[in-house]
Amino acid sequence: MYKRMLTKPDGRPLILYAREPMLDAMSAPSPSSSPYAPNPHLRWHPLRGEWVAYAGHRQHRTFLPPATYNPLAPSSDPDHPTEVPAGPWDIAVFENLFPTLALSAHDPPALRVATEPGRGVCEVVVFTQDATASLGRLPLDHLALLIDVWADRCEDLGSRADVAYVYPFENRGVEVGVTLHHPHGQIYAYPFVPPVAARELEQQRAHYEQHGTGLLEAMIADELTDGIRLLYSGSHAVAFMPICARYSYEVWVAPRRAAPSFAALHADERRDFARAMKTVLLKYDGLWNTPFPYILAFHQAPTDGRDHPEAHLHAEFYPAYRMRDRLKYLAGSEIGAGVFTADTFPEDKIKELQAVQVDVNA
Amino acid sequence: MYKRMLTKPDGRPLILYAREPMLDAMSAPSPSSSPYAPNPHLRWHPLRGEWVAYAGHRQHRTFLPPATYNPLAPSSDPDHPTEVPAGPWDIAVFENLFPTLALSAHDPPALRVATEPGRGVCEVVVFTQDATASLGRLPLDHLALLIDVWADRCEDLGSRADVAYVYPFENRGVEVGVTLHHPHGQIYAYPFVPPVAARELEQQRAHYEQHGTGLLEAMIADELTDGIRLLYSGSHAVAFMPICARYSYEVWVAPRRAAPSFAALHADERRDFARAMKTVLLKYDGLWNTPFPYILAFHQAPTDGRDHPEAHLHAEFYPAYRMRDRLKYLAGSEIGAGVFTADTFPEDKIKELQAVQVDVNA
Repeated sequence: MYKRMLTKPDGRPLILYAREPMLDAMSAPSPSSSPYAPNPHLRWHPLRGEWVAYAGHRQHRTFLPPATYNPLAPSSDPDHPTEVPAGPWDIAVFENLFPTLALSAHDPPALRVATEPGRGVCEVVVFTQDATASLGRLPLDHLALLIDVWADRCEDLGSRADVAYVYPFENRGVEVGVTLHHPHGQIYAYPFVPPVAARELEQQRAHYEQHGTGLLEAMIADELTDGIRLLYSGSHAVAFMPICARYSYEVWVAPRRAAPSFAALHADERRDFARAMKTVLLKYDGLWNTPFPYILAFHQAPTDGRDHPEAHLHAEFYPAYRMRDRLKYLAGSEIGAGVFTADTFPEDKIKELQAVQVDVNA
Repeated sequence: MYKRMLTKPDGRPLILYAREPMLDAMSAPSPSSSPYAPNPHLRWHPLRGEWVAYAGHRQHRTFLPPATYNPLAPSSDPDHPTEVPAGPWDIAVFENLFPTLALSAHDPPALRVATEPGRGVCEVVVFTQDATASLGRLPLDHLALLIDVWADRCEDLGSRADVAYVYPFENRGVEVGVTLHHPHGQIYAYPFVPPVAARELEQQRAHYEQHGTGLLEAMIADELTDGIRLLYSGSHAVAFMPICARYSYEVWVAPRRAAPSFAALHADERRDFARAMKTVLLKYDGLWNTPFPYILAFHQAPTDGRDHPEAHLHAEFYPAYRMRDRLKYLAGSEIGAGVFTADTFPEDKIKELQAVQVDVNA
């Protein structure tokens, strides 16, 4: 992995990654030239016992680009600089111009609930220079590089004293609100362990304390024994529809070993994890021969300085559709009560994905 | 409140409510004549520590009605019976033909995670006979009757030994997945306290144990002191945009007193609660002069047989739009991490709703 660190005119860092050495001179463009100083804040939600992030600047997007402007494409028009330069890079990472969290956050308002500066980092990860590509269509080597990039960014962000949890994710498709179609994901570095991850860690910790082994390890062992919900079973990684799938077509990807984070994966595990991911992604797109929208969430160990032997890195795919042309709406039961209702069984839905033939080496 | 209890040909109960005595003979129709015996089951999600409901029968809806058929309208065509009879009723309640939970549930599958019968009740509440009405346009008396109905149903369902929590809600608008536009809500009676309610109760309990008073009472007192986020302030009920609003235009409605449930509200409180609800609903629809889609969730005390002095009945409205024509998508941060990101402040958004003039007595 080759890496070059640059700084944009507005002060934001830009990191370029490549599989081959980057010999060209490159500088970091930005659509914005005013100094980068967003000031989001957090408010405590007393009834839910969680932080809510307020980023008021996000609505003041005065920037009006041409209709064909793609801020994630390599810059070519000096009048309309994008976020990334032309050059021989494969993957680019920079701070979101309109972030939910920022290290510059300071002096939150004094309110009748607790407030904190919205301190953290929101990064954009440009998966490729090709605006028409997709995560699943990247060559396996490129996907393996992305795993190295996630590992690198998670380690760097997690090493900050003010970051408690690093969360890579991808929103894919207009169905989940995406307006920018260039293949990209995001990384949020939170100053606290977010509720969903905290809940999963709590469950994993309870299992670890009782059994001395990992909860997800046990679930994977059960899936391998059952065999019926498997999508990929490699020497180091697996992909399966969990027995407790909340979404139709929900799939998890995990290393077999209870590696706590991307950074903890060794080279063979990264490679096999990439292969598992690509298998899932190609099957998704092959299911109805159309790009398959989803939220992809990675859960790993907190970076709070403590050991987390209970944590087991994994990806969870939450697909937007429950059947062809039928969106799964999260409504009264899911959102207001927290109870997911499924009208299909993972034992049935997995067969549809198993039947999709894919060539991971293509 | 007048009430008549009937039984449908398929065995489901139908309860009709009215403000005036119902003197007509009425029988209970049903679009289905086969005996009602759904068999949903619950699976334990080990990683999230929560139950997921599987109702496989929901997808086998073979019933193909005419395009204009409205199952919630009073029956008029004997060849296509609906769910409710013609007659002088105001509000009707019956069990959902395709429920997520049912008392008939039995013998869940044996799996490598814990399973339980999906025992509970899913009721449909038809708000009015008028298919073109809306909750907010119902006369105040009618809305007050609905609160009596919610109280009656919650008390009845909650008295069952197998019901731990009763949850009335409304999904409104195609934006939240509603396909049936006749004004109606739902009531789910769960065999467990659902995660969102459990979390709120946990926070309320901690506050109650520390202060001997209610958490929501304290939040309401703060809102009344601040004054800036209020939408309705009556002698018994209030409506406000909470200081920690997660959604743009999020509004809560609550009795001033920490009444634990609908059933615990006395007549004056019910009346004022109805007035508060109507105020919010009319302001929502008046904001852009178009029906305003939302999820409306009511949280109250569990019905697990224990005292819940910490619980304070309230409504939470989660609007679908964050600004005109812009949906709020719950994506990577909200769904995968559990962190809500707001790009507006409640102190600003409340002004838009405050400015909408409404006549609650109309």
